[in-house]
Amino acid sequence: MTTQPLSPTTRTTPTRGRNRQVDDRRRLMALLSDALVAHLGVVVGAHPVVLPVAFGVDAAGPDDGGTLYLHGSVAAGWLAPALEQDVCVTVTELDGLVLARTGFHHSMNYRSAVVIGRPRRVTDLEERRRALDLVVDHMVPGRAAMLGPATRKELAATAVIALPLAEASMKQREGGATLEPGDLELTGWAGHVPVRRVASAPVTEDYVSEPVPDAVLRRVAELGRG
Amino acid sequence: MTTQPLSPTTRTTPTRGRNRQVDDRRRLMALLSDALVAHLGVVVGAHPVVLPVAFGVDAAGPDDGGTLYLHGSVAAGWLAPALEQDVCVTVTELDGLVLARTGFHHSMNYRSAVVIGRPRRVTDLEERRRALDLVVDHMVPGRAAMLGPATRKELAATAVIALPLAEASMKQREGGATLEPGDLELTGWAGHVPVRRVASAPVTEDYVSEPVPDAVLRRVAELGRG
Repeated sequence: MTTQPLSPTTRTTPTRGRNRQVDDRRRLMALLSDALVAHLGVVVGAHPVVLPVAFGVDAAGPDDGGTLYLHGSVAAGWLAPALEQDVCVTVTELDGLVLARTGFHHSMNYRSAVVIGRPRRVTDLEERRRALDLVVDHMVPGRAAMLGPATRKELAATAVIALPLAEASMKQREGGATLEPGDLELTGWAGHVPVRRVASAPVTEDYVSEPVPDAVLRRVAELGRG
Repeated sequence: MTTQPLSPTTRTTPTRGRNRQVDDRRRLMALLSDALVAHLGVVVGAHPVVLPVAFGVDAAGPDDGGTLYLHGSVAAGWLAPALEQDVCVTVTELDGLVLARTGFHHSMNYRSAVVIGRPRRVTDLEERRRALDLVVDHMVPGRAAMLGPATRKELAATAVIALPLAEASMKQREGGATLEPGDLELTGWAGHVPVRRVASAPVTEDYVSEPVPDAVLRRVAELGRG
């Protein structure tokens, strides 16, 4: 895994809130590991489209900075445009609501990463299989090994694209409400409300006789039992 | 609030997964009410940028279909470009991990809305104050009424933009794993893991002597106590 600092270019350098910028690539990788959904921004026609997508990460992947893998239907409208332009993938985890004494300083605690790059369509069969396994294992580590290999028909229906993790930035806000010097003279409650994601007990399909796999139970525990 | 169906144009009609399309505007408004973070897609220079943003909603707002309000620093790099183009705002809530017998049918349960439109910069002082109150009340309903009005300096530093909710689409997936006819002959566990957001007890700033307001406690309970 590369240890280059984040934000190597002006276009991934935040114009605002630089105090919240994070320059540690390990924290980017930790955020990508925590998050389950990414938002992909692609220009389709004359306007941007932002779509929620699952993803997988290979920190030692073939692309500069490691590889972020996305997949989609070969019939998806965003696929062809995405291969002809630079796209943006943003991953955000909400960590809390920040309630200051002023509306102006109301905020959120969060971690957010912005990755910009030119997607590469993955054509090599081995890399495609590996990328799809990474997407499945991103949901539940160890899950891919429980499943049979993708069929030829499934592979033909699925496009896999790779985005280098080289050009990325990360911002984070944590802790309590920002206090302006004058705010101490105000009255009223201020503080923050931690927010997090939890999972509930797995729901087994009625045609299944096998027990819930340990890997799934571990994932539920890791996400925090709801 | 308009009752027009969603997806009135081709560019907000999903190209894939039309079975997951939701045509009920009330469910769009319910999703916007549930979600705390939106992702704004804007073309800045030669590529899209996707940024997490707080937002507020006025179902009876002055724009066609109601109004989605965003705010940001007047110095934000995305602001000027956003006012000269159509942008996309996407709101996604993750509801679960779907673990099928095949990797191909691994999926997520989610609700996601895509809104496309030309932002309008809000200049009217009354509408700006109201919009900023809506953003604060989106975090904790009733919070804005506890705070003093924004100062002239705060208002001068804050841009408010309005996006019509007219051109929007929504997709939703819920329930268990998709079963292909052949999957019954496979073995192995399949099911889904419900996922949701919870809040923890509010953390009061150490300079505050007032108790946690009821509105904040209600919000924590509503989000689900963690």
